Amino acid sequence: MKIVLSIIFLSLFSLSHASVVDFCVADFTAPNGPAGYSCKNPAHVTANDFAYSGLATAGNTSNIIKAAVTPAFDAQFPGVNGLGISAARLDLAPDGVIPLHTHPGASELLVVVEGQICAGFVDSGNNVYLKTLEKGDIMVFPQGLLHFQINSGNSQALAFVSFSSANPGLQILDFALFKSDFPTELITQTTFIDAAVVKKLKAVLGGSG
Amino acid sequence: MKIVLSIIFLSLFSLSHASVVDFCVADFTAPNGPAGYSCKNPAHVTANDFAYSGLATAGNTSNIIKAAVTPAFDAQFPGVNGLGISAARLDLAPDGVIPLHTHPGASELLVVVEGQICAGFVDSGNNVYLKTLEKGDIMVFPQGLLHFQINSGNSQALAFVSFSSANPGLQILDFALFKSDFPTELITQTTFIDAAVVKKLKAVLGGSG
Amino acid sequence: MKIVLSIIFLSLFSLSHASVVDFCVADFTAPNGPAGYSCKNPAHVTANDFAYSGLATAGNTSNIIKAAVTPAFDAQFPGVNGLGISAARLDLAPDGVIPLHTHPGASELLVVVEGQICAGFVDSGNNVYLKTLEKGDIMVFPQGLLHFQINSGNSQALAFVSFSSANPGLQILDFALFKSDFPTELITQTTFIDAAVVKKLKAVLGGSG
Amino acid sequence: MKIVLSIIFLSLFSLSHASVVDFCVADFTAPNGPAGYSCKNPAHVTANDFAYSGLATAGNTSNIIKAAVTPAFDAQFPGVNGLGISAARLDLAPDGVIPLHTHPGASELLVVVEGQICAGFVDSGNNVYLKTLEKGDIMVFPQGLLHFQINSGNSQALAFVSFSSANPGLQILDFALFKSDFPTELITQTTFIDAAVVKKLKAVLGGSG
Amino acid sequence: MKIVLSIIFLSLFSLSHASVVDFCVADFTAPNGPAGYSCKNPAHVTANDFAYSGLATAGNTSNIIKAAVTPAFDAQFPGVNGLGISAARLDLAPDGVIPLHTHPGASELLVVVEGQICAGFVDSGNNVYLKTLEKGDIMVFPQGLLHFQINSGNSQALAFVSFSSANPGLQILDFALFKSDFPTELITQTTFIDAAVVKKLKAVLGGSG
Amino acid sequence: MKIVLSIIFLSLFSLSHASVVDFCVADFTAPNGPAGYSCKNPAHVTANDFAYSGLATAGNTSNIIKAAVTPAFDAQFPGVNGLGISAARLDLAPDGVIPLHTHPGASELLVVVEGQICAGFVDSGNNVYLKTLEKGDIMVFPQGLLHFQINSGNSQALAFVSFSSANPGLQILDFALFKSDFPTELITQTTFIDAAVVKKLKAVLGGSG
Repeated sequence: MKIVLSIIFLSLFSLSHASVVDFCVADFTAPNGPAGYSCKNPAHVTANDFAYSGLATAGNTSNIIKAAVTPAFDAQFPGVNGLGISAARLDLAPDGVIPLHTHPGASELLVVVEGQICAGFVDSGNNVYLKTLEKGDIMVFPQGLLHFQINSGNSQALAFVSFSSANPGLQILDFALFKSDFPTELITQTTFIDAAVVKKLKAVLGGSG
Repeated sequence: MKIVLSIIFLSLFSLSHASVVDFCVADFTAPNGPAGYSCKNPAHVTANDFAYSGLATAGNTSNIIKAAVTPAFDAQFPGVNGLGISAARLDLAPDGVIPLHTHPGASELLVVVEGQICAGFVDSGNNVYLKTLEKGDIMVFPQGLLHFQINSGNSQALAFVSFSSANPGLQILDFALFKSDFPTELITQTTFIDAAVVKKLKAVLGGSG
Repeated sequence: MKIVLSIIFLSLFSLSHASVVDFCVADFTAPNGPAGYSCKNPAHVTANDFAYSGLATAGNTSNIIKAAVTPAFDAQFPGVNGLGISAARLDLAPDGVIPLHTHPGASELLVVVEGQICAGFVDSGNNVYLKTLEKGDIMVFPQGLLHFQINSGNSQALAFVSFSSANPGLQILDFALFKSDFPTELITQTTFIDAAVVKKLKAVLGGSG
Repeated sequence: MKIVLSIIFLSLFSLSHASVVDFCVADFTAPNGPAGYSCKNPAHVTANDFAYSGLATAGNTSNIIKAAVTPAFDAQFPGVNGLGISAARLDLAPDGVIPLHTHPGASELLVVVEGQICAGFVDSGNNVYLKTLEKGDIMVFPQGLLHFQINSGNSQALAFVSFSSANPGLQILDFALFKSDFPTELITQTTFIDAAVVKKLKAVLGGSG
Repeated sequence: MKIVLSIIFLSLFSLSHASVVDFCVADFTAPNGPAGYSCKNPAHVTANDFAYSGLATAGNTSNIIKAAVTPAFDAQFPGVNGLGISAARLDLAPDGVIPLHTHPGASELLVVVEGQICAGFVDSGNNVYLKTLEKGDIMVFPQGLLHFQINSGNSQALAFVSFSSANPGLQILDFALFKSDFPTELITQTTFIDAAVVKKLKAVLGGSG
Repeated sequence: MKIVLSIIFLSLFSLSHASVVDFCVADFTAPNGPAGYSCKNPAHVTANDFAYSGLATAGNTSNIIKAAVTPAFDAQFPGVNGLGISAARLDLAPDGVIPLHTHPGASELLVVVEGQICAGFVDSGNNVYLKTLEKGDIMVFPQGLLHFQINSGNSQALAFVSFSSANPGLQILDFALFKSDFPTELITQTTFIDAAVVKKLKAVLGGSG
């Protein structure tokens, strides 16, 4: 019985080339395209491709923002390639801040695992949505909108966030303006922020122009 | 200056009807469609619509599987409607098991927050991918494939999972077969499981037929 | 007139490289990605790429399930690559059964061409939907849900099915559990099926572990 | 055991409102939107919603084209709403013709069930792809391209076609030009077909203007 | 001949309810959803629904930014609902500036119709892309990234922009920060901009908090 | 401060391989796939990749249709690859005509920049939508439907069109029929246009068969 059953279904799987089936673990050595990275040869895929330990260690928060973002996007975690999901870890020491930023290609869902976090976003109508989240609370940040997270408690805070894309992107407002070579004159023209303020922040963050 | 600037942009926002902008918080009282629920009137949307506390409390694991799944899909958390993401909380007491199941409409990403979890999935080629995950580890389960989670440690385990859809669906294999009115004769014909086994499991889980 | 008209439109088509236009016949020798296979050079595409005769011959039903599934997914029929559609042929001898299975990546539409077929699926709420279909009847199986087809008549049955993806995937429940190396202990833990039953079915279907 | 198991999962399904789960059978009495019709109340959905007998009867081919198209789009078959798939039946008497047409919103896959069919399509580069298909052969027509089917055998021909959308649309070239109120002057200007020819075909097909 | 031909195809169009066909003109009086507004009754749709004159008149640039943005999103131009495209008109007097902003839900393509425009955007890697565009030049701004347009010539500039969504959204950085009730303390914490600067810009733009 | 801040975020960008971030400029030398061309190495991308001057020059309208279409699809303008948008320029001398055509893969939005244009399309129900557009007016043509543009004024007309895809395709009806090798007999059978008319137009446009 075993042999006969196998025969009938063998035709489904005895193909002469690797089939695109169920998943597409990223192969960083082949070309990528608008939908993500090329797929690793399925014959070489193992369980290890679908798990990632890079978020198990706390990020180093001994810095000016007293916070750390550790991404597990497709570029770090090849198993999520093409699956429409990815993750990151947020560590916030007391007074830690994840500065105002956007994810151009995804909505974000945050879950607080330790501590207390004040989070917020602004919509296209300039409405501000603020929440103080306790352990176990979740919050969603719609795609592409400016948002932030602040440790509003007295102890270390830890959150995991997930994204509706394997490649959400991350544009940190201050870095876009003040850690880039965005010409100061253009920044002042397009933001109304004084040149002196721009130059000061560029000096701190490493921008030029 | 303030007045003039406002005037020029006023035209953008002085619309006579509510615009579909940035998000679509679910309105459970209006019709839903293939893309999700109708949108709540934006004028009534507040920060509370984007946060959810339903995952902050541990699920009750005093049951036969010693585990609990608490969903935060669009039906529970209206803020995720239309955003392509949702979440759930998994509580597993020692020996706790989330039985074999699929999410027909989404891939899943799991992060272990407490304890140790053995998780796995099977692909279309009948390959089994198993991983033992420690605190902070993440794992992804490609869309629609059978998968499970087991507490493989000695203490309570806690995980948060997120999905690539606001409405991932959840089909628990045992419930589909043995907690439904799926006729026993059809189950035996389509699974090769003996009628006696089917009847026994139906008696336990509450199935009929 | 002919010459002038040609001149004006020539600019549209005198490109120095092959354009992605209208279709993307699979090139199995190039990398594939999350959206499908790379495209065959359009200059080499012919009408033969868009037709397939692999479903013209009845599958061999001289086996334990008295049935055969013959796929025309992108891996067999390169013309459907990227077009969001594919097909398969179902042959069912009297008493033939297509065992319980899912397509993780597509909805399915079946049309009965010969004989009588009893088909059904189970949804996330454990509701079972059963229909007996006569020649010419069609039925749809929503994406990712467990479903089956049985020859419920006295003669050979033939059906053609189509899918809402060029690569729907196919997970046969019994094969996932009993024709794989899914450890018996994990199967019993995650399905409540006795180890003895699991071992017996593994022996029949060729599973290990 | 039965009771306890039920309790733990009850929280998943004891929602106070109908959830968008797994499918969205069309409710023609509620508003429709870009993604399809509103969903019928899941509590009223039965197996009958997922099956359709409208393609079981041969279309009437006693007409000038000696052919008939019988659609099973979402408007006829509410079960396919939102599932990205639909179907139609083609009956072609000897010499029957399905005139040149497009489906603006879907690719099409045809399977010949009886007789012989000559089918073809034209791409953006004005390349013509022609195939003569025998019983059991399949052919795919990429989205939006002009295509046709002709009975090229001596007997009645029957084909079933499926589409990569629940609402593929159908634009028959001759009807768009000659069964509409498209002003004759504009037709001649935009097609180079003589006014006399246009008027003659309008007289036959019922066009005006 | 005319009558018979009509009969055979009548079955396609003699449906008892309005079908979702080809387009979905927005009905602002019915519920909207994640995919856009509900569809206007097709029987009431006319050519006027697909055209819009709101961009024919120059916006008023007698203001502090010497510029005006006039949108033709689905909320203004109901014909684009569900079609994945929309538009806007940019008028820039000499020295006019469209301040730094994002479209959370769409990529943008700009064409210069009059004058000279300097445009730029910043990517997730803090790279700045700047171009000076002359009449007839086009430029694309990838989805969700900060960008701006400045009149870099000596005369009035006019540009038309289109978007890859009927509802691209528009988040103007300065308005999000300084024309909202975003608490000053949170702005300083999440942007490193001094409170004094924040307060000054809020006074100008009308922000509170 | 500058150094420390940089350190904490460095982990985000110190990846060992180029990440798919924000955009995917087409690399015409690598394979393409269903979602578009492969991505150019981000390290080599400059502002020039996102701008295009090919639409700045008027097309040559000294031809039989007194019109010209100049495309800026992904094949001409690699910066739009994967961004879901593209453009084209329409030049129409007095009496100029863009013949009846479809874009199989995109909706189109037209803006009149100079002159007066009469445009129209036909839907699946054979309804014709006609509008005379003045300077600054916009019109949308739903995906895949037959449409045209005619200079209805006394002077040169100029329009820019954009598409909801980087690769909309372009099927010109007359070219598909009469500039191809579509056999005359099949054309007459599938369009009811007399063979003599077909042959005459083929002679003009260069068709064979």
